[in-house]
Amino acid sequence: MNGAQSLVATLLASGVDTCFANPGTSEMHFVAALDQSAGMRCVLGLQENVVTGMADGYWRIAGKPACTLLHCGPGLANGLANLHNARRARSGIVNIVGDQATWHRPHDPPLTADTEALARTVSGWVRTSTTSAEVGRDAAAAVQAARTAPGQVATLILPSDASWDEGGVVAGALPVPSAPAVDGFAVENAARVLRSAKPTLILLAGGGARGESQALAWRIAQATGARLMADYMSSHVERGRGRLQLERTPYNTDLAMEALGRFEHILLIGARPPVAFFAYPGKPSTQSPAQAQLHVVTRPEQDAVAALRALAEALGAPEVALPDPGPRPQPASGAPAPDKVAQTIAALMPEHAIVSDESISFGRGFYKNSHAAPAHDWLHLVGGAIGAGLPVATGAAIGAGGQRRVISLQADGSAMYSLQALWTQAREKLPCTTILLNNRKYAILQGEYRGVGATPGPTALRMLDLGDPDLGWLQLAAGMGVEAARASTMEECAELLERSFRHPGPFLIELMV
Amino acid sequence: MNGAQSLVATLLASGVDTCFANPGTSEMHFVAALDQSAGMRCVLGLQENVVTGMADGYWRIAGKPACTLLHCGPGLANGLANLHNARRARSGIVNIVGDQATWHRPHDPPLTADTEALARTVSGWVRTSTTSAEVGRDAAAAVQAARTAPGQVATLILPSDASWDEGGVVAGALPVPSAPAVDGFAVENAARVLRSAKPTLILLAGGGARGESQALAWRIAQATGARLMADYMSSHVERGRGRLQLERTPYNTDLAMEALGRFEHILLIGARPPVAFFAYPGKPSTQSPAQAQLHVVTRPEQDAVAALRALAEALGAPEVALPDPGPRPQPASGAPAPDKVAQTIAALMPEHAIVSDESISFGRGFYKNSHAAPAHDWLHLVGGAIGAGLPVATGAAIGAGGQRRVISLQADGSAMYSLQALWTQAREKLPCTTILLNNRKYAILQGEYRGVGATPGPTALRMLDLGDPDLGWLQLAAGMGVEAARASTMEECAELLERSFRHPGPFLIELMV
Repeated sequence: MNGAQSLVATLLASGVDTCFANPGTSEMHFVAALDQSAGMRCVLGLQENVVTGMADGYWRIAGKPACTLLHCGPGLANGLANLHNARRARSGIVNIVGDQATWHRPHDPPLTADTEALARTVSGWVRTSTTSAEVGRDAAAAVQAARTAPGQVATLILPSDASWDEGGVVAGALPVPSAPAVDGFAVENAARVLRSAKPTLILLAGGGARGESQALAWRIAQATGARLMADYMSSHVERGRGRLQLERTPYNTDLAMEALGRFEHILLIGARPPVAFFAYPGKPSTQSPAQAQLHVVTRPEQDAVAALRALAEALGAPEVALPDPGPRPQPASGAPAPDKVAQTIAALMPEHAIVSDESISFGRGFYKNSHAAPAHDWLHLVGGAIGAGLPVATGAAIGAGGQRRVISLQADGSAMYSLQALWTQAREKLPCTTILLNNRKYAILQGEYRGVGATPGPTALRMLDLGDPDLGWLQLAAGMGVEAARASTMEECAELLERSFRHPGPFLIELMV
Repeated sequence: MNGAQSLVATLLASGVDTCFANPGTSEMHFVAALDQSAGMRCVLGLQENVVTGMADGYWRIAGKPACTLLHCGPGLANGLANLHNARRARSGIVNIVGDQATWHRPHDPPLTADTEALARTVSGWVRTSTTSAEVGRDAAAAVQAARTAPGQVATLILPSDASWDEGGVVAGALPVPSAPAVDGFAVENAARVLRSAKPTLILLAGGGARGESQALAWRIAQATGARLMADYMSSHVERGRGRLQLERTPYNTDLAMEALGRFEHILLIGARPPVAFFAYPGKPSTQSPAQAQLHVVTRPEQDAVAALRALAEALGAPEVALPDPGPRPQPASGAPAPDKVAQTIAALMPEHAIVSDESISFGRGFYKNSHAAPAHDWLHLVGGAIGAGLPVATGAAIGAGGQRRVISLQADGSAMYSLQALWTQAREKLPCTTILLNNRKYAILQGEYRGVGATPGPTALRMLDLGDPDLGWLQLAAGMGVEAARASTMEECAELLERSFRHPGPFLIELMV
């Protein structure tokens, strides 16, 4: 058994059964080993940032890591931006990077790069297997690291000789450490804050924004008058009927400061202290008021449900039903607008859909119009590196076993960074509906430019606008094998949405906004 | 004057007048400064690897650096693969990366990454300007570093407050160090080797493969019986009528060892000792025979022309004309094949064309069929990170001021990594002809897989093949605003080539091979 074969067998033994790949020459023995094993689903991406984004989306929905397969330092470099996003989303990924043979690397062949340095910028765990005998052991440790709460990128670098040499040893799955215990003092302190009846915000993220946490947080809020919000940096929120109507803290610094300004206490449940996405001249970095006290109730790696349950019990908060969001909206009509898009999706989305939201400037008001939709999962870009939306949607569809409709709310500018994901959606026949919000510009940047206090002149406009020539999204989608159609009104959008939901494979709606 | 304004003024003062950009929020003050200045041509790329690849192509043809504009660590990450290629090609680039404000970075906002660590993997020079007063001075140093022979990536990291704060100071151009003097001992040693009449190879790269070096090397070869070859890693070779008929060392390890096996001495003119691109089990890393002696005549940063002239004089080598390549070939006919594509391009290419070659497996025999073409420049991918071909072609067209036809020999698999370059070609109305060699697979990997000693099964085949669905290149090009047509025979290819050469803007020929 060679190292590559021991790697595949170890990954399968550790429960990793999906591989997102863009292999090269140095990975051919791994590809051969995949060919010889049953049980590993291999999904090709035509550019590495698609591969890594798919692994992120897969984790968020499947709740377990997939592995990647990337080609040397430059292949890893191509996938780094979505690994950055995965790091910020705290997604678990077993990131496998082939590399030069150990005895060839000192000769500095052309594709050689500092693979470990690149990996460290996004990974919680990095190791290079230097012999075939180590590969199985290292792979088991990588899976363990990726699964350790709350999840992280674990990069295993595989020199080609460690892959092709005989002497591979399959390793059994390593135990995943249990989450650090809830801190009784932190819970007691939170209870004291809540009993004080001072204006208090409970800021939820990670596990604090999903599952049982929602009902528990609602109980606490009802009993104490505290407000609930999801952190803007929440990567995954469960929404719709039967779930909590949870708003996120605003992206815009002024709006966030306004939203947080009245609180004297902020209880952090898996959330970080609220920080502005970008700095602006004369504006502060932190969004909470200077006098507010921030209390860490749970760190991201702790069990938010257990902490909220302990807190609800400490407060004697009675069981209470989540509020009814009211009737499901009807599809909107007329000219496209952000509110209407959200309303129409809420009106038509199938049960247990997944939304991958990279709508950027256009989509900031989507949440409040979709509380009364059927239960669904909403995935956000929290690392800020655009180009995640389509790959995350693709990986989420695979993570759901193709059984759930995935809806991408996708801005045009950011779609261009990783449009190759559409091809994988077509090849894998995934139930992905993309609403391509075509405004023919980097709208967010035009807003930011005005924030500088100037009106863009011709040079600036050419750097902030996507026209001249217009991108032909119907042609781009068709070129990747994805059926597509254009909508210029909400009625047309609704009709295409319904058509796409009946369609077994991917579909792209170019919505002119 | 703010820091951004001092940056633009300093770049212009140092002779940098072209900016390849994909800006984000933290770069808005730089964009505003560009808007307020005359003289800087700004070219938008829709993904950062397009931006950095364009800067590489620009350097190779313009012979001076352009600057880039990238958005924070993740934006730099997206552009790293083509910066890796630029590093291997020894291209000079002033790589400007916006970043978090100095006082905001400690709060670790979402887009924060280790920008300096990422930059160091590809740069010969890295600096972060921490105040607006430093920006001009640092920019001048960056241009100096980028221009220092043989050329390198110089990364200037620009926190947003250094950009927007007042106090910017314009710096004058810094002197570019002259190339280290030719080593008289090395020249004398080379002359002694050549006089020995032992089988000797003169291996040329960098400046050694271009310009006056060619005639001097030919004189030396004629006088001594030495063989001439271009290093496989030569990024830029001048070819065609009036130039030397120079073959590259082969990519394939076995063929390279065969080609080099008979030499007892190898004289390196700007070239590195020949090393295999990848390791293979049981094959050596170095391609030259164990008993061969390698002699460094000039390092890449030295003046190859001066060294070759000194060597020719030391040998008393008489002036001699370069050999005539014979008549220009006729366009080929029938089914497409590598030899015929080269022959047809040689038959039809306009004078002083530029070829950007990312033909990978298909194009390895192109050289020998185009010696009798008009004079042209041939640009190679020497860093091995695929996805360079179209961006380099785009930047080369801009570096030539739109006055020279650029022909991309482009494999389909590698085109998919940076197909967004087509949009920039359309926007800038560049005279770029792309021959998209559509074989619907990663042909190089299918060859490498067979090298593992196995026949690919269904899992492997799905990872090495680009069909299911087929990529629709006519649609992809049209979606980016580039006119395109398909050729299935060499006659059709010739007709489309001629049509494209009359066409003022970009054109893509999908050649079914």
